[in-house]
Amino acid sequence: MTKIMLPFIRSDLAQFTAYKPHPSSDTADSVSTQFDRLDTNESPYDLPPELKEKLAWTYQQVIETNRYPDGGHETLKDAIAEYVNESAAFPLSNTAANISVGNGSDELIRSLLIATCLGREGSILVANPTFSMYGILAQTLGIPVVTVGRDETNFEIDLKAAQSAIEQTQNPPIRVVFVVHPNSPTANSLTTAELAWLRSLSEHILVVIDEAYFEFSQTTLVGELAQRPNWVILRTFSKAFRLASLRVGYCVAHPEAIAILEKVRLPYNLPSFSIAAALVALQNRTLLLESIPQTLSERSKLIEILSQQPELQITASAANFIYLRLKPNGLNSQDAVLKTFHQKLRKLGTLVRHISGGLRITVGTIEENARTITRVQAAIADLEF
Amino acid sequence: MTKIMLPFIRSDLAQFTAYKPHPSSDTADSVSTQFDRLDTNESPYDLPPELKEKLAWTYQQVIETNRYPDGGHETLKDAIAEYVNESAAFPLSNTAANISVGNGSDELIRSLLIATCLGREGSILVANPTFSMYGILAQTLGIPVVTVGRDETNFEIDLKAAQSAIEQTQNPPIRVVFVVHPNSPTANSLTTAELAWLRSLSEHILVVIDEAYFEFSQTTLVGELAQRPNWVILRTFSKAFRLASLRVGYCVAHPEAIAILEKVRLPYNLPSFSIAAALVALQNRTLLLESIPQTLSERSKLIEILSQQPELQITASAANFIYLRLKPNGLNSQDAVLKTFHQKLRKLGTLVRHISGGLRITVGTIEENARTITRVQAAIADLEF
Repeated sequence: MTKIMLPFIRSDLAQFTAYKPHPSSDTADSVSTQFDRLDTNESPYDLPPELKEKLAWTYQQVIETNRYPDGGHETLKDAIAEYVNESAAFPLSNTAANISVGNGSDELIRSLLIATCLGREGSILVANPTFSMYGILAQTLGIPVVTVGRDETNFEIDLKAAQSAIEQTQNPPIRVVFVVHPNSPTANSLTTAELAWLRSLSEHILVVIDEAYFEFSQTTLVGELAQRPNWVILRTFSKAFRLASLRVGYCVAHPEAIAILEKVRLPYNLPSFSIAAALVALQNRTLLLESIPQTLSERSKLIEILSQQPELQITASAANFIYLRLKPNGLNSQDAVLKTFHQKLRKLGTLVRHISGGLRITVGTIEENARTITRVQAAIADLEF
Repeated sequence: MTKIMLPFIRSDLAQFTAYKPHPSSDTADSVSTQFDRLDTNESPYDLPPELKEKLAWTYQQVIETNRYPDGGHETLKDAIAEYVNESAAFPLSNTAANISVGNGSDELIRSLLIATCLGREGSILVANPTFSMYGILAQTLGIPVVTVGRDETNFEIDLKAAQSAIEQTQNPPIRVVFVVHPNSPTANSLTTAELAWLRSLSEHILVVIDEAYFEFSQTTLVGELAQRPNWVILRTFSKAFRLASLRVGYCVAHPEAIAILEKVRLPYNLPSFSIAAALVALQNRTLLLESIPQTLSERSKLIEILSQQPELQITASAANFIYLRLKPNGLNSQDAVLKTFHQKLRKLGTLVRHISGGLRITVGTIEENARTITRVQAAIADLEF
C-alpha cells in the first residue's frame, strides 16, 4: 500500500516510536524452551498448581464470561488495603478509599498523567536511567518530560539538577516527579538525601513513588502517605505476586487523589479473571512470598561471584534484579562491547536487558542463576576490550 | 478526613463526575439470583461448558501466570482479520496490519482521542442520544465535545445541525465524528442519508464507526475501509461473542492509522487469559453465533407484543436490545413517570437502562423476555399517566 498522510493525527505523534514489547514475550512457546528469560524482572515461578487449579475452578464455576466485570473493585480494594497496612512497622488505616486498581501500573501512570499535566498544565521530571514508561506515556499525551541524571557510581539522583529543574521549568512547570523505589534498572533504593528532597517539594507537585519491587526491598513509604496528600505510591502484582500475565497494578493515596483516579480510569478496566487472580494471590500471600528469601540470597550470590570479574562494576541491589556495567578502559567503545556482551549472552541462552549503558539481569531460579554466572564469565572471556 | 484541595490536579477535572459502573455488576452474586440483568446489552449466555473447560485447561497447562502477556498480539490479530474478512459480501484483504486490539473498545476510543484531539488540536462530534463513553472519555482528556440531536421519531442524526457544526466549530475544529452502527440506546442503523453525509466528510476528519452490535445487525462498513483512510471501525467481543468479563475490543483501519494506535496503546494491554479467550471464541464462532437467530426472533416478538401497549412508542431495532419511550400525553412529567416505570420494573425483578428519556431493554433468554413482557405490562398498568 502506498504511504499516505493521515491529516487527523496529532502532528507531534508522527515522529514518536512505539514501545516494543520484549522479544521474549511475543513468541512465548519457542522462547520459553530455548532461553532463560531474565530480561523483564518477572518472578521465575508460576503460581503453584493448587492455586492455578483454584483459579481455573473459579473461572468455570463462578465467573460468567458473558457479564461485565465488577467495575467497583470494592472486594479487591479491601484486600489490597489490608495487605498495604501490613507493610509498615506501625499501624496504618488505609481502606478501599485509599486504593485504585489498574490494568497494570501502566494504566495508573497514564491516569496520573492525564489527571495532572494535560492541556499544557504540567511537565514531568524523571531521573535517568529509570523506568521508561513514565516518559513514553507522557510523550504520547504531549506532556513535556524534563530529565536529570544520576551519579555514575551509586545512581543517586542529581538532586542539585533536579531542584534547579523544578525552580526553572516554566510553561508548563513541573507538576509530577516520578521515582522508582528501588529504581529500575539500577536497583538502588531512595537514599536519605533523596527522601529529604522529595519531602521538601511543594504540595503543588505530585510525587509518584513506584514500589513495584517492594516485596524484594521490604522498604516502603506508605507510612508517610497520611501526612503527604501530594504523594502516591504505585505497586504491582506483576513481580513478587507472579501475576504479570494478568495485568493488575494498584495505587495507594489520599482518598481525594484516589477519587480523581477513579474518575479518569476506564470503568471496566480489569477483567473478571484478573480480579479473581489478584484476590487469590492476596489470600495466599504467605505461600507466594515464601520464595522471596531465596531470591534475595540468590541475588547476593550473583553479585558476590560476578563482582570477582575485574571487568564488571556491579552495584548493590534492593530488587529482584542486578545491574552491571563494564568498567571504563578507554580501548573500545563501551557501548559496542556491551552490545556484543548482550548478544553473546543471548547466544548462550540467557536473555537480559541492555539498557542505559549496562545490563539488567533478573534473579531467576537457582539453576538459571548458576547458568547466568557461567555464561557471563564465558561471554566476558570472549570479549575484546 | 477533612476535605483538602489537591493543587496538582487539572482544574477542569474537579467538576467532572465519574462514570458509575452499573449496579448490576458490582454485587454479582446477589444480583444474578435476584434479577434479570437486561441493562448492559450483554449476551444472556455464558460460553458453553466445553469452551470454559478448554479455557480453564489452557490457563492451567499453557499460560505462565508469572510471565508478561504477548504484547504483539499477532496471532489474535490474524484471527480477527480472518473473521473481519468474512463480514462483507465481497472479498476483503485485511491482515494483522489492519487490526489493533484493546482492553475493551473503551481503550481504543481513548487511544483514538489521544491520537487526534489532544493539545487543543480537535473537538469531537456526537449525535445524542448515543453511547456515552465517547463524550466521557473526551472530557477526561479535556477535549471539547460538540453535540447535535436526532429526530425524535426515527432517531436519525440531525444532519443539517451536524454539517453546520463541522463548518462552524473552530478553536479547535471538529476532528473526529463518532457514530454507533446500529446506535445505542436507540437501536437504529445508519441510514442512506447518514452514510452519504459520513462519506462526504473531509479526509481531515476521522470517522469512527462503532459496530459493537454488528453480529446482530449483520450490516457492516468494513468493505469501505480500503477506500477511506479516515474511517475506522470498532468491534467488540463483549456482546455476541459473550466475553464481556474479559474485555477485548478491536479496531479495523488503514495500516497507518493502526500504526498510530499501536504507538499510543499500553504495551501489555491485554492479559494472557483474555487473549486466549478471544482466540477460542473466534475458533468456535460458528457455535457461539448460533444463538443470534434466536435473539433476533425474540427481539421481533418483544417489539411486536410491547407495541400493542398504547402508551409505548418502540422503534425498530438492528441490535440485541430494544428502546422504548412513553407516548406524549401532557398530563404528567414524562421523566418522572419513566423513572417510576424503571423502578417498578426493578422491583418486579428486571433491570433495564433508563437513558435519554427512554428505557433500553436487552433481549435476554426466552424466559427473561417472557418476564419482560409481563412485567412491562404490569408496570404500565400501575403507572399514573
